[in-house]
Amino acid sequence: MTKTLVFGHKNPDTDTICSAISYAELKKAQGADIEAVRLGELNSETTFVLDYFQATAPRLVQTVANEVSEVALVDHNERQQSANDIDEVTVTAVVDHHRIANFETSDPLYYRAEPVGCTTTILLKMFRENEVEISKTVAGLMLSAIISDTLLFQSPTCTEEDKVAAEKLAVIADVDIQTYGMEMLKAGADVSKKTVAELLLDAKEFNMNGNKVEIAQINVVDVNDVLNRRSEVEALMTQNVVDKGLDLYLFVITNILTNDSIGISIGSKTSVVEEAYGIKFVENQAPLKGVVSRKKQVVPILTDTFAK
Amino acid sequence: MTKTLVFGHKNPDTDTICSAISYAELKKAQGADIEAVRLGELNSETTFVLDYFQATAPRLVQTVANEVSEVALVDHNERQQSANDIDEVTVTAVVDHHRIANFETSDPLYYRAEPVGCTTTILLKMFRENEVEISKTVAGLMLSAIISDTLLFQSPTCTEEDKVAAEKLAVIADVDIQTYGMEMLKAGADVSKKTVAELLLDAKEFNMNGNKVEIAQINVVDVNDVLNRRSEVEALMTQNVVDKGLDLYLFVITNILTNDSIGISIGSKTSVVEEAYGIKFVENQAPLKGVVSRKKQVVPILTDTFAK
Repeated sequence: MTKTLVFGHKNPDTDTICSAISYAELKKAQGADIEAVRLGELNSETTFVLDYFQATAPRLVQTVANEVSEVALVDHNERQQSANDIDEVTVTAVVDHHRIANFETSDPLYYRAEPVGCTTTILLKMFRENEVEISKTVAGLMLSAIISDTLLFQSPTCTEEDKVAAEKLAVIADVDIQTYGMEMLKAGADVSKKTVAELLLDAKEFNMNGNKVEIAQINVVDVNDVLNRRSEVEALMTQNVVDKGLDLYLFVITNILTNDSIGISIGSKTSVVEEAYGIKFVENQAPLKGVVSRKKQVVPILTDTFAK
Repeated sequence: MTKTLVFGHKNPDTDTICSAISYAELKKAQGADIEAVRLGELNSETTFVLDYFQATAPRLVQTVANEVSEVALVDHNERQQSANDIDEVTVTAVVDHHRIANFETSDPLYYRAEPVGCTTTILLKMFRENEVEISKTVAGLMLSAIISDTLLFQSPTCTEEDKVAAEKLAVIADVDIQTYGMEMLKAGADVSKKTVAELLLDAKEFNMNGNKVEIAQINVVDVNDVLNRRSEVEALMTQNVVDKGLDLYLFVITNILTNDSIGISIGSKTSVVEEAYGIKFVENQAPLKGVVSRKKQVVPILTDTFAK
């Protein structure tokens, strides 16, 4: 049997890690030879989740073509967010909840995307359709992914399906959603011990009408915990702009209690962000009122503004 | 409620037409305001199918943005195979069984693709998952699509799932698969009354590593019915190469009784086809032994050879 590796995006978050583990569990139950791996370091939220449910972290890999010829992607599809050597392997399956871009295959494949808040909401359907039982641990991981991606159902990306899925999973995982959810989000939002590089860990790169755009996001309970270190943050962002040849680097600092964000923007195309939101950056900083979702409230509006 | 149009690819075939009708039926049953339309003339096989099951042909449209802002695609995703103004509308859903290429969205969407022989095999799952009943007419159309795309289960694209789906649909449609299937395929393979343009009707365009490639296919019971008119066929193909600036125009004439094909190739990149199959075109013509599937036996190998 051909071995498959399954993984989520670079700079992994809770959904990417938990979806890779859950997808591998589903496919193993169906007889596949598959292993969940990850493309980067775990963040503090995901570490909390794996510890809580006593799950093993997927193995860290740098490349995939040296091990396998076939891979499955979860929680992403865009090439620049995937393994560096993704073009050297065949993508046989994708389960995702993002836009489709910079993705191309030469053969038909299994592709399942739905505009829901979290990849594991789709995975739950796949477990049920295939009548595969979900273990307590995997249910806990899947629930954590939903809580993480929807900010405990507060994000505009959250759908009724995500809530229903979370409730079902909470029963199997045997946790109280609100209690566990706040504990988990706070574990992730504690930035006191983070290095500057770790503040910018959740960064994704996009190609927008030929422009190289990187968008990082962090969840906090007090934006000043990050803003106090702004000069260091901006220095690292600037270095990234130079090193990667970015046209824009936007850092979204999201307060999970008030559901607002502060944006820090570096790069020659900062004016596109100003046009998109009708704001003005002062010393690289501007408020992004009501913005909590990169996927729904940042990527589409910037894509459209760049396309103008 | 926002009205949605659903349609398949240009130069529609039986799967494209029947999938559009079936998808619209499914969504209407779920309360959507949706209409199936088509982007081109019906071929003789599809006309036979619609007559047989007394179904109305989807309305012919030239463009879609003048009517709606949201569309759903069935049986295709590549932009150049879709409505000419596809970039002016939002694609909210895709149900397909082809490779993904030249497709990009700015927002998350519903995307369901599986590597099966026919789009309606996937649609049958969606009817069942959503517990929507399938009428006798729609079952007949969905069955016809499977028979058409799999050449009555003879194509290498045919999977076990397609066979099982066809059997279930045949019960609802109340037809004998083999008897009805051969009658239907022969109705489509009768080229005696076809104009030269109609012989080349089932043509799809692909972008392969920057090259504009058009691949047409026709099913026949005797390849000589087409080869007898080769000079006219080649003249029209050459005109297409010039008019559209194609790098390659490959016409695959498939004998549905012997499951072999003859290729006719026009354009500056004919050598790529020769390299791909290890063949030599003589007077633009060469045998394609065992080739019956454009999707599985032509597009991937040409894509890979162009990428070298």
